Amino acid sequence: MPTSILKTEIDQQPEVIRNLLNSQQENVQRIARQIRGKFQYVLIAARGTSDNAARYAQYLLGINNRLQVALATPSVFSIYHAPVDLCGALVIGISQSGQSPDIVSVIAEAKKQGRPTLAITNNPQSPLAENAEYLIPLQAGEERAVAATKTYTASLAALALLSCSLLEHPEYAAELQKLPDAMQTTLQNTEIAIARAERYRYMEHCAVIGRGYNYASAFEIALKIKELTRVVAEPYSSADFRHGPIATAQSGFPVILIAPRSAVQDDLLDLIRNLQSRGAELLIISDDPAALEQAHFPLPIARGLPEWLTPLITVLPGQRFAMQLAIEKHLNVDQPEGLTKVTETL
Amino acid sequence: MPTSILKTEIDQQPEVIRNLLNSQQENVQRIARQIRGKFQYVLIAARGTSDNAARYAQYLLGINNRLQVALATPSVFSIYHAPVDLCGALVIGISQSGQSPDIVSVIAEAKKQGRPTLAITNNPQSPLAENAEYLIPLQAGEERAVAATKTYTASLAALALLSCSLLEHPEYAAELQKLPDAMQTTLQNTEIAIARAERYRYMEHCAVIGRGYNYASAFEIALKIKELTRVVAEPYSSADFRHGPIATAQSGFPVILIAPRSAVQDDLLDLIRNLQSRGAELLIISDDPAALEQAHFPLPIARGLPEWLTPLITVLPGQRFAMQLAIEKHLNVDQPEGLTKVTETL
Repeated sequence: MPTSILKTEIDQQPEVIRNLLNSQQENVQRIARQIRGKFQYVLIAARGTSDNAARYAQYLLGINNRLQVALATPSVFSIYHAPVDLCGALVIGISQSGQSPDIVSVIAEAKKQGRPTLAITNNPQSPLAENAEYLIPLQAGEERAVAATKTYTASLAALALLSCSLLEHPEYAAELQKLPDAMQTTLQNTEIAIARAERYRYMEHCAVIGRGYNYASAFEIALKIKELTRVVAEPYSSADFRHGPIATAQSGFPVILIAPRSAVQDDLLDLIRNLQSRGAELLIISDDPAALEQAHFPLPIARGLPEWLTPLITVLPGQRFAMQLAIEKHLNVDQPEGLTKVTETL
Repeated sequence: MPTSILKTEIDQQPEVIRNLLNSQQENVQRIARQIRGKFQYVLIAARGTSDNAARYAQYLLGINNRLQVALATPSVFSIYHAPVDLCGALVIGISQSGQSPDIVSVIAEAKKQGRPTLAITNNPQSPLAENAEYLIPLQAGEERAVAATKTYTASLAALALLSCSLLEHPEYAAELQKLPDAMQTTLQNTEIAIARAERYRYMEHCAVIGRGYNYASAFEIALKIKELTRVVAEPYSSADFRHGPIATAQSGFPVILIAPRSAVQDDLLDLIRNLQSRGAELLIISDDPAALEQAHFPLPIARGLPEWLTPLITVLPGQRFAMQLAIEKHLNVDQPEGLTKVTETL
C-alpha cells in the first residue's frame, strides 16, 4: 500500500514544530513586547480543529500566564450583526486556511474597535492574516489531507511560543525545545502499538476523556475519529463526564483516556477505577506505567515533558489511531467522504 | 402507570417561570443597578446542565447586551491552583445545588480579587450562594428527579431577567411575560406528538443541532438524552457540524434540529436540505411550518416568542422526548442508573 498523504503529514510533525520554534521565536517575542499590558483578557475565534487549539490556550494562558481566555461565538458577529464591546480584549483568530468568513468577521470587528489582533494561520496571504495587526505564520507546508494534523500541533506550538514570550521565563522557553524529540519518540511508540487497532474494527461509538491542558487533546482526538472513521466519538472532561454521560459507559463501552503524569492524574486514575467497575473498555494514552497497566489498549507517549506541553504529544497516538481505524474500515484516509478541506461558514 | 417525578417537574415549568419572573424582578433590577458599569466582560462558572445555561448567556448577553461572556475552566482554579487575573470581570456561578467545590472555588477567588459576584442557584443556603455578593434564588421548589429540567429553564429565565434589567428596555421586559403561556402551549403540543417517539426505541446515537441562542438547547437536549436513555447524543452548532462531524450523517442517521424562526433559520434550512440529500432521519423542533414539513418527526413549539426567548421553549420537546425514549427502553426516568443528583467535582 502506498503511504497516504495523511500518514506523511502525521510523520512530518516533529520537523514542522522544530522549524516553527526556530523561525518564529523572534517574531513572537516582538509581538509579545508590543501587546504586553494592553489587554485584560484574551478572546479567541476559531472553528473545528482550530477551536481545539483554542481550548489548549484556555489552560495554557490561564495557568501559565494567569490570563482569562474566552472563546468567541462567531455567529454573534457574523449572523446577528451584534458585535460585542471588546474593551479589554486581545483578539486571536486561529484558522489553517484563514478563509472562514465568521472567524475573519471577529478579527475585523476587533480591529475596528482598536483592539490588538493576532492571526495564527498556515496561509499568510489569507483574509484572516490580512485583517490582523500581528501574524504568526505556521509554516507547516501545504496540508493536503482533509483531516488536519500538522497545522493543529503547529497552532499549539505557536500558542506555546506566545505564552513563553509573554512570560519571559527562560526555563519555559528551554522546555519548548524538547518538543520535536518527544514527538518523534511518541510517533515511534505509537507505530508499534497501533497494529492492534483492528480490535476496534466494529466499534460504533466511544468517549474520549481528558482534563486540564489535555482537555484539548480529548476534543481533537474525538474530532479526528469522527472525521476519518464516522465513528461517533464524544469528548469530555472527566468532571463533565461524571455529571451525566457516565451513565452511557456500560460494559464494553470504549473510553479513550488521556492520562499523562499531571496535576489531574489522581482524578483520572479515580475515573479509571470507576470505569473498570462498570466493565468499560479502556484505551489509555499516558507516560505513566501505573495508568498504562490498567488499559486494554495502552498507547505510551514519550516521558519527560512538563504537563503544559504534553498536549502536543498526547494527540499523536489519537491521530494515528483514527487513521488506522479508517484503514481497517476500508475508508479513504486522505479524502473522507462528505468533507472538504476548507469549510467556509457564516 | 403512576406519573413520574420527572414528568411532574417537566410540567411544573410554566408555573416555576411565572413565579420566578414575578418574585425576582425587583431583586434583579437592584442587582443590575449595583453592578452596571463595574465590569467589561462576564465570566460564568458552571457544570453539566448549568453549563448549558451559561451557553445561553453567551448569546443572550452577547447579542442583547453587547457583553462578551467567557466560560470558566474551573480546574484552573480548583486543581492547578493558578487563579487567573479576573480584572474587568463580572463573575457568575450557576449551580442547581450550589455545592460543587470547583464552581464555588471560582466565585471565592473572584470575591478575593474584589470582583462583583453573582450566584444563580436553587439552594440559597448553599456554599455558592454564601460566597457570592449577589444572589438570584431560582425558587423552583425541590428538584427530585436526577435529570434537571425545571432548574434549567429557571436558570435561563434568571439570566433573561438579568439581561433585561441591565438593558432597562421595557419592551424586552414585556416579552418575558409571554413565557409561561408559550411554555404551556409547547408542552401541550409536545404531548400530542410524543406518542410516536417509540419509532426511536432502537436508536443508538444521534446528533442534536442548534445555533445562536438555541445552541444551548442543542447541548441540553443531548445531555437529557444521554442521562435518561444512555443513547450517545452529540450536540453541535450547524457551523461546527459542517466542519467535520457531518461525515457521520449517513443514511438513516437521526439528527434533531432546533430550527425556530430566527436569524439563523436560512443556515439551518440549508443544512436540512444537505442532510436530506444524505438520507438522514430528521427530528425538527420549530414554529415554522416550512421547517416542520421537512421532518420525519415534527415537534411544533408555540409561536410568537422573540428568538432570544425561544430556548426556554425549544428545550421542552427535547426533555419530553428524552423521557419518552427512556420509557420505551424500560428505564427508570427518575433515577437513571449510574447517576446521582448532586455531583461534586474538583
